[in-house]
Amino acid sequence: MTSSPTCADNAPWSPPSAAFTRFFDPEQLGQAITVAHETLATHLAKDDVEGIRLELPGALLAEARALMTEAEPEGFDAERFTAILDLYLRTGIKVNSRGYMGRQFSSVAPVSAVFDMVSAMAPQPASFYEAGQLANVADKIIAEEFGRRLGWPSNSFEMVSTSGASLANMTAVLTARNRHFARSWKSGVAIGPRGRPAIAIGEDSHFSVSRVAGILGLGEDQVVRLPLNVQRQISVPAAATALNSAVERGLDVFCIVATAGTTSIGANDPLEALAQLARDRGLWLHVDAAHNGAFLLSDRLRERVRGIELANSFCLDAHKTLFAPAACTLLFYRDRGLAATAFPQTASYVLDPYEDEISRFESGTKNFECTKRPSILNLWLTWALFGRGFFETKLEHLVDLTRAAHDDLMSLPDFVVAHEPESNILCFTYRPSDAPRDLDGFQLELRNRIRAGNRYFISKVDLDGATVLRIVLMNHRIGRSDISGLVEEIRRHGREIIEDWSAHEVAA
Amino acid sequence: MTSSPTCADNAPWSPPSAAFTRFFDPEQLGQAITVAHETLATHLAKDDVEGIRLELPGALLAEARALMTEAEPEGFDAERFTAILDLYLRTGIKVNSRGYMGRQFSSVAPVSAVFDMVSAMAPQPASFYEAGQLANVADKIIAEEFGRRLGWPSNSFEMVSTSGASLANMTAVLTARNRHFARSWKSGVAIGPRGRPAIAIGEDSHFSVSRVAGILGLGEDQVVRLPLNVQRQISVPAAATALNSAVERGLDVFCIVATAGTTSIGANDPLEALAQLARDRGLWLHVDAAHNGAFLLSDRLRERVRGIELANSFCLDAHKTLFAPAACTLLFYRDRGLAATAFPQTASYVLDPYEDEISRFESGTKNFECTKRPSILNLWLTWALFGRGFFETKLEHLVDLTRAAHDDLMSLPDFVVAHEPESNILCFTYRPSDAPRDLDGFQLELRNRIRAGNRYFISKVDLDGATVLRIVLMNHRIGRSDISGLVEEIRRHGREIIEDWSAHEVAA
Repeated sequence: MTSSPTCADNAPWSPPSAAFTRFFDPEQLGQAITVAHETLATHLAKDDVEGIRLELPGALLAEARALMTEAEPEGFDAERFTAILDLYLRTGIKVNSRGYMGRQFSSVAPVSAVFDMVSAMAPQPASFYEAGQLANVADKIIAEEFGRRLGWPSNSFEMVSTSGASLANMTAVLTARNRHFARSWKSGVAIGPRGRPAIAIGEDSHFSVSRVAGILGLGEDQVVRLPLNVQRQISVPAAATALNSAVERGLDVFCIVATAGTTSIGANDPLEALAQLARDRGLWLHVDAAHNGAFLLSDRLRERVRGIELANSFCLDAHKTLFAPAACTLLFYRDRGLAATAFPQTASYVLDPYEDEISRFESGTKNFECTKRPSILNLWLTWALFGRGFFETKLEHLVDLTRAAHDDLMSLPDFVVAHEPESNILCFTYRPSDAPRDLDGFQLELRNRIRAGNRYFISKVDLDGATVLRIVLMNHRIGRSDISGLVEEIRRHGREIIEDWSAHEVAA
Repeated sequence: MTSSPTCADNAPWSPPSAAFTRFFDPEQLGQAITVAHETLATHLAKDDVEGIRLELPGALLAEARALMTEAEPEGFDAERFTAILDLYLRTGIKVNSRGYMGRQFSSVAPVSAVFDMVSAMAPQPASFYEAGQLANVADKIIAEEFGRRLGWPSNSFEMVSTSGASLANMTAVLTARNRHFARSWKSGVAIGPRGRPAIAIGEDSHFSVSRVAGILGLGEDQVVRLPLNVQRQISVPAAATALNSAVERGLDVFCIVATAGTTSIGANDPLEALAQLARDRGLWLHVDAAHNGAFLLSDRLRERVRGIELANSFCLDAHKTLFAPAACTLLFYRDRGLAATAFPQTASYVLDPYEDEISRFESGTKNFECTKRPSILNLWLTWALFGRGFFETKLEHLVDLTRAAHDDLMSLPDFVVAHEPESNILCFTYRPSDAPRDLDGFQLELRNRIRAGNRYFISKVDLDGATVLRIVLMNHRIGRSDISGLVEEIRRHGREIIEDWSAHEVAA
């Protein structure tokens, strides 16, 4: 063999400048970390009650633009970075404050937030074992922990971690569609001998669930809405009637989507009975347990999602009630082998001829995502460091606090509580004896003024056409005194609204 | 008005224990940050050549399990956290090393990685202006910066930031489907007067693009594959013929998906000509510019994606060639007002009756995601601190380096280069005069042995049925000497394979 030529004989080529490579120095990383640490420590140490500080976009746009460098920077500008972080924290929702009771956004475990920096700096796209080995292994560990609590035999089921419950719900319904209409992936959705493919969902399903029908080509008109009972759970007798009537209308329902933890009031559908109903009719049961699937980790709360183990699939958001950063969603299939039928397709640079042992750990063909963050590690890490008790303690505390809030509001004559809380969500209205006749407008105005007042942030939902106020307790720092504080805030704004509105009526 | 009762009259309730709340202490955050900083600084300061260290899942599973706490922890266990981070970094792809040339995974700007910690600790779901004000404002700033370079008049177009190009491609094709088949969202996909709804994509489209037809109910059989020219770009004359033949087969093609930066070789389709073709036939043109859309930010490279401004929509991944953490994808619509037709649906707790000024900044109804990370800020932040030149410098450097690698390999008699590089991807084969007859098997074995050798990580793809080696240069630390280093590594393994295989033949 002759001696091989090397590359050195070619034209010269220059590496990037020192000025540029400085942006990647470990030193600069250290400066940025110092700024972020100081800013976050101050943010977390604050104990003020602040929900949100809503600014008009125009003003904020100008402020953001003014923070952008004009010149070629000489090095790391710690002052500018500090100003940017301050602006971010000032204008964002205050999930770490006792004033934030607005939505299902979590106050996360700090250690998992720190991991996000590591996984950003050393990215490991976890759709492929090769690229994210530890994440794929963590998927298995977490799956087994849940499987044990579901009573599912080891290796009989599957879990795919994905980015958000919207994606998980779509993936599950797609898997059901592909199973019931074997030709739909290749030939497209079509009217079959039994009618138009359709799904059935609870009236209180999350908006991402009814969207699925529009996306997957079924059509939103082919969504059968299952009526609720007084607890706002799917009514099983009414569901059976609705399914019968769907058949008469020429709909071929193949999937029921139930909910464990509705967005509006946190209700859990009767999963055992729905599983029976689905089995009797040969339907797939998927449970959107984005909010309450986490109850599986609490010995005390698990009972509330009984029957979830009978579903064909369910998902839960670890970034909601397991206090991981978004997005970390777990999608479970009761029967092994189904996950890979969601996206039944191959590509040469995805599916390398791996060894068998590694293939079993691959998630690429089961995931919608190609580049998937190793978010499962944010969950596994917290579990590894603090144990399951961490999740159980925080969850149970939030549920207990919501029960206490319920009891407190029940005892007040000027508040009307809308439901018994099944999780950490509570809806109510403020109805003093002199409340305005436009009760819906009154609640909405209350929510708006409370939001504008910056101290508390609560949301509103419509229940059967009526506007109600809603709190979601996601932060264990919130205590019973904050419920009292909110009550006083509502009463204060309520009095002002009544005065303003009656002055306006007199004037008109 | 009588004095109102307060909550204090109710049963006692206890706050969570001090042991629990310690997990959320700013102090613990500080300890975790210190560990992460030290670990990352060591990781970045390393200058060794290491591509990947592939371990078998069984052994890794045992190692991960052993790192999980058994007891109720007393406090923050810095030692355990360090061990977990070390395991993560040891088993992951080494995108920050000069040895990693495997795939389109970025070595990110450190400052944007640090921001991920902040956005994890203080989450701001950016689908709603209310929850993520700065992110929604940053969307507008980034959109305008790109709009200027596209020559699009201000306020005539829209940009939606989303989580990955798979999602962006699906969203764009869905928008096109909804526009061309106005009833498909509500009634479902159906055969129309002009045939079955279909899309046309290049032969080298990313696998997520052909998936879209399966997901959206069109069916994979309704994907028209557009043939490529010798540069592996869509051939416009052949595309016209393929579209005509699709009509004859009863397909109603409504959308062409072109690519700027194919996964296999980084090729850019002829976008101007394809835009003309699409316009002539009344089709939507979407460009999957996940990889090369970033060229818009370079005055020198912009020319390579000329015509992208004529597309109805295109997307680009800032987490690829703009060096942001995943997932940060920008989806552009040339015509304002279309973004909101992707998911034409409402829900009371999403669409509050906001003021008009705020509504213009809402992205909730334009996004698939409900909980969307404010990832646009990772991009905006880098831009604000370092200016556009940062992206331009790194991109141009990587493209120049790839051209140099091309020239180097061209000058070597034992390497066959597969194409002129149009971006930072280069494919080639190793073919010494005594190469085994099974050339495909030889390349695959080379890739496997190189990977197992840990120093370099390269990938392989199939081009027209032939296996070729592929490098993707994403890290500016990689220099020309690393190309020489890889050449030597390939030659060394090549010689060993030839010896091993001929010994085996003799034995057989």
